[in-house]
Amino acid sequence: MFEFLHQKVSETISITDEEFEYAKTLFIPKKLRKKRFLLEDGDPCIYTTFVEKGLLRSFTVDEKGNEHILQFGMHGWWVADLYSFLTGEPSEYNIEALEDSELLLITKSSWDLLLKEVPPFERYFRILIQNNLIATQRRLMGTMTTTAEDRYNKLMQDFPDISQKVPQHMIASYIGVTRETLSRLRSQLATGS
Amino acid sequence: MFEFLHQKVSETISITDEEFEYAKTLFIPKKLRKKRFLLEDGDPCIYTTFVEKGLLRSFTVDEKGNEHILQFGMHGWWVADLYSFLTGEPSEYNIEALEDSELLLITKSSWDLLLKEVPPFERYFRILIQNNLIATQRRLMGTMTTTAEDRYNKLMQDFPDISQKVPQHMIASYIGVTRETLSRLRSQLATGS
Repeated sequence: MFEFLHQKVSETISITDEEFEYAKTLFIPKKLRKKRFLLEDGDPCIYTTFVEKGLLRSFTVDEKGNEHILQFGMHGWWVADLYSFLTGEPSEYNIEALEDSELLLITKSSWDLLLKEVPPFERYFRILIQNNLIATQRRLMGTMTTTAEDRYNKLMQDFPDISQKVPQHMIASYIGVTRETLSRLRSQLATGS
Repeated sequence: MFEFLHQKVSETISITDEEFEYAKTLFIPKKLRKKRFLLEDGDPCIYTTFVEKGLLRSFTVDEKGNEHILQFGMHGWWVADLYSFLTGEPSEYNIEALEDSELLLITKSSWDLLLKEVPPFERYFRILIQNNLIATQRRLMGTMTTTAEDRYNKLMQDFPDISQKVPQHMIASYIGVTRETLSRLRSQLATGS
């Protein structure tokens, strides 16, 4: 159950078997079926979550009922509302399974313990958060400097199989256009016009 | 010269005087006059920079010549193009002084050494990057879910004196509207209409 986490962690930092054995004791395994929620807005985000199998999404719902997707959580990624996780404040996000998923959850107090007892994890999360920051900065600048077509192409390049896994309205929400605009864009790209 | 950095670091982590004395040897102090550049796009971002005094901005210029501001670097903040700093790839960003500034620069190899030799700095940068990620995620979601007025009010709330320090067209660029839209918005807010 922990092999994939071990593999991903070992790709980033050096860790002894003893340290990883200790880390394992701090995680809570959980299966989450498609369409079920790991977090609902208004609740605090109690866990940060490693996606061992499956696919999650984190999103907000605005006053008009429109969904805005912050992140798709692919297998091998971590998903949380970081602010709520760190502060214990109610979250503005929902986290939902888009496929049947297998997750490893860790609470804030266990996470603090992990960073304290196994310093290489401090480095691991620094690098992970750093990569997430770079990607988020690019996406932010992308909303100012790129077209919807650029953002669509970038998403397809980063996650080639996402169209098979995620309904079109969620892809539209992620790149920040209406479903109609995305549909028009896809036909244009398909016909090369 | 290093008192302010020492103060900011000590607010976040516990560090001994000996560790901080070692850290000091890795920084390069630099004065940068208003309108001078610390980084120009196309060059690699060689340093990550602590702003001891003054004010910087990081921005890109799109194909049409429009500027898009990623970040204002207030005193006590860090500024870099993280991707370019970590990889050595040419940067897409410019970093410019908006006021006469006093900076502490650190190269990638010195930064790596600092994290290796003084592990509390691993924690310091993890927390710093984490806070930056939370702010950037909020700004990204803000571009999708909030109005220009919301984003203007948020900026004024976070940095009450920014209007005295930064020309209006840069504030417009930061919140992602034209100068004309910002001007209209400010008159509406001033008259309470």
